[in-house]
Amino acid sequence: IDAVVSPTISADINNYFTVMSGYLVFFMQAGFAMLCAGSVRSKNAKNIILLNILDACFGCCAWYLTGFAFAYGDPVPYEQCNGLEGAELDACNAGPAILGGVSASQGFIGNRWFVMSKLPRENYWFWFFQFTFAATGATIVSGAVAERCKFEAYMLYELMIVMFVYPVVAHWMWSSSGWLSPFRTPDTKTGSYLYFAGSGAYDFAGDGAVHMVGGVASLVAAWVLGPRIGRFDAAGNPVDMPGHNAALTLLGVFLLWFGWYGFNPGSAVYWTLPGVDHASQVAIAAAVNTTIGAASGTIATLFIAMAYQYFTLGVVVWDLIIAGNGALAGLVSITGPAGFVQPWAAFIIGGIGGFVYFVASKVNLHVLKIDDPLDAIAVHAGCGIWGLLATAAFAAPGMVSDVYGARADNDEQRAYGFIMGGSGAVLGANCMAIVVIFAWTAATMTPFFLLLKKLNLFRVSPEVEAQGLDVSHHGGSAYPHELAAKGVNINGDS
Amino acid sequence: IDAVVSPTISADINNYFTVMSGYLVFFMQAGFAMLCAGSVRSKNAKNIILLNILDACFGCCAWYLTGFAFAYGDPVPYEQCNGLEGAELDACNAGPAILGGVSASQGFIGNRWFVMSKLPRENYWFWFFQFTFAATGATIVSGAVAERCKFEAYMLYELMIVMFVYPVVAHWMWSSSGWLSPFRTPDTKTGSYLYFAGSGAYDFAGDGAVHMVGGVASLVAAWVLGPRIGRFDAAGNPVDMPGHNAALTLLGVFLLWFGWYGFNPGSAVYWTLPGVDHASQVAIAAAVNTTIGAASGTIATLFIAMAYQYFTLGVVVWDLIIAGNGALAGLVSITGPAGFVQPWAAFIIGGIGGFVYFVASKVNLHVLKIDDPLDAIAVHAGCGIWGLLATAAFAAPGMVSDVYGARADNDEQRAYGFIMGGSGAVLGANCMAIVVIFAWTAATMTPFFLLLKKLNLFRVSPEVEAQGLDVSHHGGSAYPHELAAKGVNINGDS
Amino acid sequence: IDAVVSPTISADINNYFTVMSGYLVFFMQAGFAMLCAGSVRSKNAKNIILLNILDACFGCCAWYLTGFAFAYGDPVPYEQCNGLEGAELDACNAGPAILGGVSASQGFIGNRWFVMSKLPRENYWFWFFQFTFAATGATIVSGAVAERCKFEAYMLYELMIVMFVYPVVAHWMWSSSGWLSPFRTPDTKTGSYLYFAGSGAYDFAGDGAVHMVGGVASLVAAWVLGPRIGRFDAAGNPVDMPGHNAALTLLGVFLLWFGWYGFNPGSAVYWTLPGVDHASQVAIAAAVNTTIGAASGTIATLFIAMAYQYFTLGVVVWDLIIAGNGALAGLVSITGPAGFVQPWAAFIIGGIGGFVYFVASKVNLHVLKIDDPLDAIAVHAGCGIWGLLATAAFAAPGMVSDVYGARADNDEQRAYGFIMGGSGAVLGANCMAIVVIFAWTAATMTPFFLLLKKLNLFRVSPEVEAQGLDVSHHGGSAYPHELAAKGVNINGDS
Repeated sequence: IDAVVSPTISADINNYFTVMSGYLVFFMQAGFAMLCAGSVRSKNAKNIILLNILDACFGCCAWYLTGFAFAYGDPVPYEQCNGLEGAELDACNAGPAILGGVSASQGFIGNRWFVMSKLPRENYWFWFFQFTFAATGATIVSGAVAERCKFEAYMLYELMIVMFVYPVVAHWMWSSSGWLSPFRTPDTKTGSYLYFAGSGAYDFAGDGAVHMVGGVASLVAAWVLGPRIGRFDAAGNPVDMPGHNAALTLLGVFLLWFGWYGFNPGSAVYWTLPGVDHASQVAIAAAVNTTIGAASGTIATLFIAMAYQYFTLGVVVWDLIIAGNGALAGLVSITGPAGFVQPWAAFIIGGIGGFVYFVASKVNLHVLKIDDPLDAIAVHAGCGIWGLLATAAFAAPGMVSDVYGARADNDEQRAYGFIMGGSGAVLGANCMAIVVIFAWTAATMTPFFLLLKKLNLFRVSPEVEAQGLDVSHHGGSAYPHELAAKGVNINGDS
Repeated sequence: IDAVVSPTISADINNYFTVMSGYLVFFMQAGFAMLCAGSVRSKNAKNIILLNILDACFGCCAWYLTGFAFAYGDPVPYEQCNGLEGAELDACNAGPAILGGVSASQGFIGNRWFVMSKLPRENYWFWFFQFTFAATGATIVSGAVAERCKFEAYMLYELMIVMFVYPVVAHWMWSSSGWLSPFRTPDTKTGSYLYFAGSGAYDFAGDGAVHMVGGVASLVAAWVLGPRIGRFDAAGNPVDMPGHNAALTLLGVFLLWFGWYGFNPGSAVYWTLPGVDHASQVAIAAAVNTTIGAASGTIATLFIAMAYQYFTLGVVVWDLIIAGNGALAGLVSITGPAGFVQPWAAFIIGGIGGFVYFVASKVNLHVLKIDDPLDAIAVHAGCGIWGLLATAAFAAPGMVSDVYGARADNDEQRAYGFIMGGSGAVLGANCMAIVVIFAWTAATMTPFFLLLKKLNLFRVSPEVEAQGLDVSHHGGSAYPHELAAKGVNINGDS
Repeated sequence: IDAVVSPTISADINNYFTVMSGYLVFFMQAGFAMLCAGSVRSKNAKNIILLNILDACFGCCAWYLTGFAFAYGDPVPYEQCNGLEGAELDACNAGPAILGGVSASQGFIGNRWFVMSKLPRENYWFWFFQFTFAATGATIVSGAVAERCKFEAYMLYELMIVMFVYPVVAHWMWSSSGWLSPFRTPDTKTGSYLYFAGSGAYDFAGDGAVHMVGGVASLVAAWVLGPRIGRFDAAGNPVDMPGHNAALTLLGVFLLWFGWYGFNPGSAVYWTLPGVDHASQVAIAAAVNTTIGAASGTIATLFIAMAYQYFTLGVVVWDLIIAGNGALAGLVSITGPAGFVQPWAAFIIGGIGGFVYFVASKVNLHVLKIDDPLDAIAVHAGCGIWGLLATAAFAAPGMVSDVYGARADNDEQRAYGFIMGGSGAVLGANCMAIVVIFAWTAATMTPFFLLLKKLNLFRVSPEVEAQGLDVSHHGGSAYPHELAAKGVNINGDS
């Protein structure tokens, strides 16, 4: 009986694990749809659900056309295929598949495998898994623009972000040539490895690439779009505008939490490694940390909000919607650090994540006066940033090694969290990631949304907004019986 | 380190993959239940959900009693066990388990393993997985008979279709002795292989066996049952009769899409093969194609419906319910071709599937004057037929080989799609499948439903229909607070 | 090609199977939340959902603090590590990890691995999987105390049950040192094995440890708390108090059924075993039996309730809510026997489980006059007891061997079900389990709840109960549009 795992069976198991994780990440679309549906007024329920299902659909087209190519289409280094001909050249150009060697000149963007052309079929697992991430990132914005955005504008936005904006960031952070990536392979010109700040940015499951991109795009979109009618009174004070169905909202939270077990553990992308015992402990630690982060975020947010209300208004309120957002805040916060930190740190990270969410939400509403119906900005941008910082603080040396292996250039221990006794390298790289992801997303999406606004394509008319988007644009109310209750005859419905 | 996979571990992994896929397929019952519940009027919500949960329950009983035996209970050829005695004879008769050798005389129906008797426990994975398919096929009809069918009739229907009608078709298409099956093993009398039309019918995950059976049974049932009161006006024109909760309907669509990742990829029934690298690419390609087919179907249907409304009524409507049905249309369309076609073809297949659904729905309602509350006929029969045709057109040679291996009789390449440069063999076999599945289902279900009608067992009285089935037969409204809103006192509910 | 499975790859696959099962069990939280939400009046929907999400969150904290340690923190026997020093001693004390050898003196409770301290990371899979069970058991009570329990009391209850009450029972039943456990390892003082009654209690997936604990705690809680206002009229007769949304309730049933495929098959905790062909058949048989048990329970309950109404009131009613509870009754009933019994027995067990539920529910309401809004007592305590008895009756010898192997002390066949020709050993052990689990749970939870009541911490005021908990304590109605329909202006919601 051999104690090692054959490469073939190892790859089979890893691909199963990753594809199954992709299914769970896809399921998050159902969660987002229900979360959004419950959080808007009933007159706009169909609209927001349509945005959500089209996130998956346009996201798929966009990822097929250019998204995957820009993100992971690293070319094989010229040196490697030089001198080959015919089928051998084709094979060389096609391989070594995912995360293969590449020249540093491709640090900004990938450039092959458009429309899956020449993508070897044994790499489809990666295409699929990464598609689910792209679609998840894109769907975040649907909450921020809810109840007032033109449907046509949202379709264009979806193509913009999945075809171009997100893939570039994914390339920087996760590809084998991205300039911030800890997966970088050697520069083919110099032969040297160039980890940014000596470490590269650490982002286990996408606090930067997914949540910050979605969150910053939400910020820009909600700012350009302006608040819903009635969200602020004449004095500029916010007016409460509750969603129509808290049960749907929380169903969404539960579905998202479940799907996150694909998002975070799945980001290990392997379950076994030939010659390594218990390689799965990276993914399993991510599952444990995800659970703890969510639990901690929920409880912290619930108590923070209760205390806030108690000290400002003198009443004790245990707010379900805020608790649900707290769960999401915890989940987003632990997304970046999931595979790198120990369970006790996950409690801290989730709890602080709840605090970050709560403060960011208040600042957003009361100071910036931005109307974000789903609190997408606070949850995804706020906690996304926090998650990248937390990774730089709490990443444990042994766990970093399990995730990334030794440094590829000198075979030494990778950098790790400064609270754990490590250097500031990860902090430097992750701060750079925060800055450039914020800048890139804002710099690309702001002109895009401003142009839509200029062309009068972005926001529905006040009349349509007052009446609701469903009756105006989507073939009638989501709940025709409500109309019946108002005396409108709905074909015999009792 | 060996590069091959041991048969034992390979079987273990395959069984895990298949059983997990079965869980996902089972989950589609939740999707159907929500889809149906949202799509009917609130007065019949409990009734339709009860039909859906009983699909799983009666389906389980029916599959246990005779369904599995008729579908996959191929006897071992006489020659193989001849001369054995006692335990050896028992073992021989029990094996070689699933998809074993069988005589051509069993091309119509299987005949052992009733009530799981003598079914070796190592085959339970297959029993379970196939059960989930049978239950899924059966549940399709619940949408077509919604809001007017007697509950007792539906229970009888469920037994009829899962005990007999569906298993026979599954036997034809997928068993090792079915006369249309590409899995056929040699005729034990002649020793020759008899692929129908030289290829057998190609149906990866069940456009014929599952969706056409359910869709044609829906057609017959809705036709015999007649339209709901008020569905057509005095002049015979259809009157809109919207469901009561679009959020539930679309929740159903999301859950079904998720479950389809069990239905299509799972139909590979293997993830690894001893001695084969990347055997999982069949299942993974099915996952990619499923995603693309759904995306394409959704978008195509949304735009087709918008254009139709624009050119007929002059208004731009982006209809959520139609988009949701478009997703299902894309999913059904790609079900048959899922493992055989390339991604670009999946876009075409899903898109045309949306068109097929839209036209079939209009024909059904405006020409045939059939009231199908869930559009089950258009989605499942219409796109099921299209999917079988699309397989015959787009099946790629290499992918067919990966799924079926070489021809068992002469070790040559299997037939493939005519658009891909192949012969018309698959088209011939799949057209035959379309004809005989339609004929078989209609010929068995029509007399059954007519008999129910004759015995006055099929349809509720007009009074019950007007009042709603829930209050009449299921212990009260699904939403008692609605009654409260009308002044009926519901025990202190506010 | 070797026919055996390497231990490394086997462990990898088993861990994947178990962790994925844990995700599904976690998903049951979503099911419980929807089940509960639909089953209460709309004025308390947010409250009950908040209880459910906090089950997962406080459950996670409680499991981290002491729960896992009390349940599975068996110390390594002194003899084993005696004489070692330094790192070797640490390693010995840390191992042999889960289910390792232990002295009989630890039969009552475990005592290491608090806050996951020194828990080797390769055991995290077990921590995670068992956490999901603890949280599931705890959430049962939320249904029994619905619509009248103080939120603060529920948080304390959650800590009490997951930190202490449940772990002790799990330790007895499932750990390697528990006094009732069939997994017992030899007593380090005597060297002998001490299976209780010569067999230990058989409880495959937790009819005793999970469902009885939750069900008995529900009984005590509902009894101490008293009925909701208006649940019984002046004469003491129950008044119907239907939930507000049957679609949500049944969505919950479907989600729970799906999640049960993690709960029951997952309890095998292995999918492969080195040197064993088809080791997965234990888990797969559990999946088949789970399906059959649920189907049988649903149908039996539906017909029993119909017959009861027909003979008492003369009307035929097919009650959806009762059918849904019947599904849960079948699922709970088959939880204990899932891996031990043959499919025909699963039909019997599920069907009788439906009967047990129906009778227990009636006794509970009409005789004991206990108000249990979700029928949690009848479903979980009633069918949990039945499941333990059914295991003692129907456990088949070969399947028991597959689950537990041979007796560790004398290598002989384990005891099995008395109906299957076995001895009464399992019946004796399982009856003892029923008695002590009931006694332990009642003896710990009754004083706890009485104390809460004494301190006036347990029940909300009659005014709050009349108004609903959501408006009073949770920031407003779950459905603000309902208020709007009554003339309250909700910020422009139409």
